[in-house]
Amino acid sequence: MNDPAGEAGTCAPDPETLARAAWSRVAEPGDVVAGALIAALGAVDALEWVRAAAPQSTEGGDPGVRRVFDALVERAGSHGESPRRLAAGIARWAPRLEHLDPRRELRVLARLGGVVVHPGIPGWPTPLDDLGPAAPPCLWVRGEADLDRGLRRAVSVVGARAATGYGEHVAADLAAGLVERRFTVVSGGAYGIDAAAHRGTLAVGGRTIVFLAGGIDRPYPAGNAALLARVLESGGSVLSEVPPGCVPSKSRFLQRNRLIAAAGRATVVVEAAWRSGALNTAGHAAALLRPVGAVPGPVTSMASAGCHRLLRDGLAVCVTDAAEVAELAGTAATDLAPERAGLPADVDGLDADERKLLDALPVVRAAAPDSLARAAGLSIAQVLAALGPLELEGLAERDGPGWRRRRRPRTGA
Amino acid sequence: MNDPAGEAGTCAPDPETLARAAWSRVAEPGDVVAGALIAALGAVDALEWVRAAAPQSTEGGDPGVRRVFDALVERAGSHGESPRRLAAGIARWAPRLEHLDPRRELRVLARLGGVVVHPGIPGWPTPLDDLGPAAPPCLWVRGEADLDRGLRRAVSVVGARAATGYGEHVAADLAAGLVERRFTVVSGGAYGIDAAAHRGTLAVGGRTIVFLAGGIDRPYPAGNAALLARVLESGGSVLSEVPPGCVPSKSRFLQRNRLIAAAGRATVVVEAAWRSGALNTAGHAAALLRPVGAVPGPVTSMASAGCHRLLRDGLAVCVTDAAEVAELAGTAATDLAPERAGLPADVDGLDADERKLLDALPVVRAAAPDSLARAAGLSIAQVLAALGPLELEGLAERDGPGWRRRRRPRTGA
Repeated sequence: MNDPAGEAGTCAPDPETLARAAWSRVAEPGDVVAGALIAALGAVDALEWVRAAAPQSTEGGDPGVRRVFDALVERAGSHGESPRRLAAGIARWAPRLEHLDPRRELRVLARLGGVVVHPGIPGWPTPLDDLGPAAPPCLWVRGEADLDRGLRRAVSVVGARAATGYGEHVAADLAAGLVERRFTVVSGGAYGIDAAAHRGTLAVGGRTIVFLAGGIDRPYPAGNAALLARVLESGGSVLSEVPPGCVPSKSRFLQRNRLIAAAGRATVVVEAAWRSGALNTAGHAAALLRPVGAVPGPVTSMASAGCHRLLRDGLAVCVTDAAEVAELAGTAATDLAPERAGLPADVDGLDADERKLLDALPVVRAAAPDSLARAAGLSIAQVLAALGPLELEGLAERDGPGWRRRRRPRTGA
Repeated sequence: MNDPAGEAGTCAPDPETLARAAWSRVAEPGDVVAGALIAALGAVDALEWVRAAAPQSTEGGDPGVRRVFDALVERAGSHGESPRRLAAGIARWAPRLEHLDPRRELRVLARLGGVVVHPGIPGWPTPLDDLGPAAPPCLWVRGEADLDRGLRRAVSVVGARAATGYGEHVAADLAAGLVERRFTVVSGGAYGIDAAAHRGTLAVGGRTIVFLAGGIDRPYPAGNAALLARVLESGGSVLSEVPPGCVPSKSRFLQRNRLIAAAGRATVVVEAAWRSGALNTAGHAAALLRPVGAVPGPVTSMASAGCHRLLRDGLAVCVTDAAEVAELAGTAATDLAPERAGLPADVDGLDADERKLLDALPVVRAAAPDSLARAAGLSIAQVLAALGPLELEGLAERDGPGWRRRRRPRTGA
């Protein structure tokens, strides 16, 4: 009874999972030195090495430590980590090594019904590999754990917490349209645009994935707890790169945004103030060479100022509906937005001369070709050549030697 | 009494003005063959030559006519006019030569208090020269005739006739802001956006120029007659490339748009449906390498669909206020839109470590540097280095061996 998560203990976590869980506690999100070290040594060895090196880290000048560093640098060489950066890394990881207890955090996770997903197991979302050394060591996941399948065809929809009714309407509409086109909708679970995107997805039975900035044991914001629960019930996922218990600090929010940007094939900003976290997400997506869309809005609305800024700066493409977003995110062959049909106009299919003649044709009293030529600014030969097609189209009719305009009968009437 | 315009007769029009007035009746707007011919021979000689050649134009195979054509082609060679195109030109001008009476049209103009402005006299708007052979032979002008001065610094504001309240509000606002920046506002005098742009200009005492598609003796649309009268009273201009009495046909509207596009240093589309004449104006401006701006609007509004189309297609820059339009239209040195200030944030000016530490500082119970290092994911050295600046900024305060967050006192309080 003292170990309420005893059932989790029956399945002892493997060393790789334990080490990656530990790394997600030791290094802050987006720590590229940690990422490079893990890539060079593997998560288990990297952690062991840091444990060994940390006590000596204050004596940075020690030649033995320097030699180990140098050997490491050679292995991590492709990531360009310098000994100085590694030493700084060890110094900032050291304070957290002491109280490290990944087994306890994994038990908390198991109690929530969650799992840890990392690059060594199926389900790891391969789009995050594009982050390189900034990829998280693992993800703490509730709900559906096959994130790779879920993100094979995903769009990230982000925007302002202080959204307007217009923005929330558009976000929900876009999400529903994306579901119709078989996309997963990724967002951050915040108030405003994020919540509207998640809700719009759920409303049509689609799949949505929530990337939190803090631990998945604490729904944030608390007001969206019921929404996150519905995401889980619907077969979606709620996940984070930081272990249970971690607070969603400002820097973690900004780093979380890089995951959202990497998770979607494209990122769409629905509403954003002139300064907005959503612009940070858009910047991450652009840096990853993922397409960015921005939904325009009234220029009188401050909630759209950030979107217009993205458009002005050429960082985003203007998108106005789900078809255009799908085109941005999809493969060209299958997801091209349909050409929009304009209103059918009577004069369609006419060439320039025929159009000029049509404009010049009198409605009541018929006019002879020479008079029509003067009125239309055409030669008599051009008038005679154009009258044929107009007659065939039912737009002109003869009256003795002259011609006049004729109302085209409605098709099928 | 039979010649109510007798007073105009006292000042006989010069041959150049007469010839150009005649050309504006003989050739439809945008007739580049006429433009090339006038450029090669001069308006007077070109008209004489056409009068001589026209009766023979049906015998196109005549070697004498062909020789004259060939000599002409040599002179007009830089415009690349072929004999075939010249023959076709003569054929379409011929029907109008017979009833030509430019003196009468100039009398009508004089009665309206108007003048003809052409490239040979001061006041001719030199920006229209960029149209090359598509430039009009002359302009029929009411109101201020020094168009060159008026257009030295002008922006064309165009858009849908079926505008929304939003679009009209933005158009009037933009116009007023452009006047403040010493721009003339050019538009087409139509209902909707055009009228709102003219009105917005008049409201702040600015200068506006109306380009009509039909003759300036017939205000079009009739419902805007009072607006056009106010433009004239305010020192603005109402003008057209076609003589008094000409109807505003569809093709003349489309050609009129090229003049509006050429008249402004930039063209701004405020609202436009998916298919809209305003997009035609934008296309002309782009072809002239004039910058094009599009004002975004709600994606739920069909009246903004054409603007969003321009943005999506990369044909226009997103503009949201007069400063951004001025930047588009002005010289870079003087008209750069001011950098927009974001909301001042507490954490501005802090570096990444200081921001992380600030996030980790407890509000109530002070924490020691090693505990702060764990919480922030920083080394102890980084914590100690960051505490100084935070203390100086009034964001952190000591409490015994520990530190805690401090509310920054309001400046000046």
